[in-house]
Amino acid sequence: MRVLGVDPGLTRCGLGVVETGPGRSVSLVDVGVVTSSADAEPADRLVVIADAIEAALEKHRPDAVAVERVFAQHNVRTVMGTAQVSGLVMVAARRRGIPVALYTPSEVKAAVSGSGRADKAQVGFMVVKLLGLDAVPTPADAADSLAIALTHALRYSATGGAGTAKTTAQRAWAEAEKAARRRG
Amino acid sequence: MRVLGVDPGLTRCGLGVVETGPGRSVSLVDVGVVTSSADAEPADRLVVIADAIEAALEKHRPDAVAVERVFAQHNVRTVMGTAQVSGLVMVAARRRGIPVALYTPSEVKAAVSGSGRADKAQVGFMVVKLLGLDAVPTPADAADSLAIALTHALRYSATGGAGTAKTTAQRAWAEAEKAARRRG
Repeated sequence: MRVLGVDPGLTRCGLGVVETGPGRSVSLVDVGVVTSSADAEPADRLVVIADAIEAALEKHRPDAVAVERVFAQHNVRTVMGTAQVSGLVMVAARRRGIPVALYTPSEVKAAVSGSGRADKAQVGFMVVKLLGLDAVPTPADAADSLAIALTHALRYSATGGAGTAKTTAQRAWAEAEKAARRRG
Repeated sequence: MRVLGVDPGLTRCGLGVVETGPGRSVSLVDVGVVTSSADAEPADRLVVIADAIEAALEKHRPDAVAVERVFAQHNVRTVMGTAQVSGLVMVAARRRGIPVALYTPSEVKAAVSGSGRADKAQVGFMVVKLLGLDAVPTPADAADSLAIALTHALRYSATGGAGTAKTTAQRAWAEAEKAARRRG
């Protein structure tokens, strides 16, 4: 299963693509951040972001799109642009018949790190572990988009059988789950 | 000049089209409200609204699109859907090369009624006067979309020359301006 994760934003929008493999392994397909200039008209900025999202859908043909659920409560200054971009993602995906899943920031943190209160560094650490990367992708929006994609991929990927040798990602996941149970 | 005014919303989205005539006259072309079911998935609801907005752009080929500017501060429960719909309108218009103007609720109230603090009834009253209608269009989203379209149309319509006979709309407008000056 191939998942496009989107960390929606008007100034920077993270687009991360992951693919599930055997067991609970997940690998990185692509990650990037599309930006729009704060000097441009809001409508033109939205078009830049919408074009990039649609290009990513065409290029990667994901089986699902996962988007961070936006709340009006936090980050009032940027939340309107974020909401607008999330709407564009949802429509672009549904028009291509691709299912859309929304995840809250705490759901994403819990899914990748075992704790809904994990900080940025922990989430970045787990993105590296789960995808077998050398370093945390930058900027933060890139890592966040991968965390969102991973949230969906891990939820729907096959559970490794008892006799199956665990991949790095599976071991990292199992450890995170164990740690969460200890804290829980 | 033909203007599509949009009162963005996920449950109800008002779409009103007006056209400027000689002097400051403005006439109604079309008005309607597109709705989406609260039972449907958010992404599918957005597609319903986006389809209707694009159909209106294709049918009426407006010279400009005017959209209510959404703020995160008020109406937190519905503001995310409203922001998402406004983003869809902006992208649909810009992709067709149509300029997009954003107006705050107070700008709309001031433009049609002479006061930024006018209530719904006053705005409805002025929509009727300016467009020469028999009654206030319902639901409120329909009347609001016309008020938004009128805000843009009145700003860009030609000013009637001194010797030109005033239309009903021009008289109503002049009276509103005079009233605003008295209050101001």
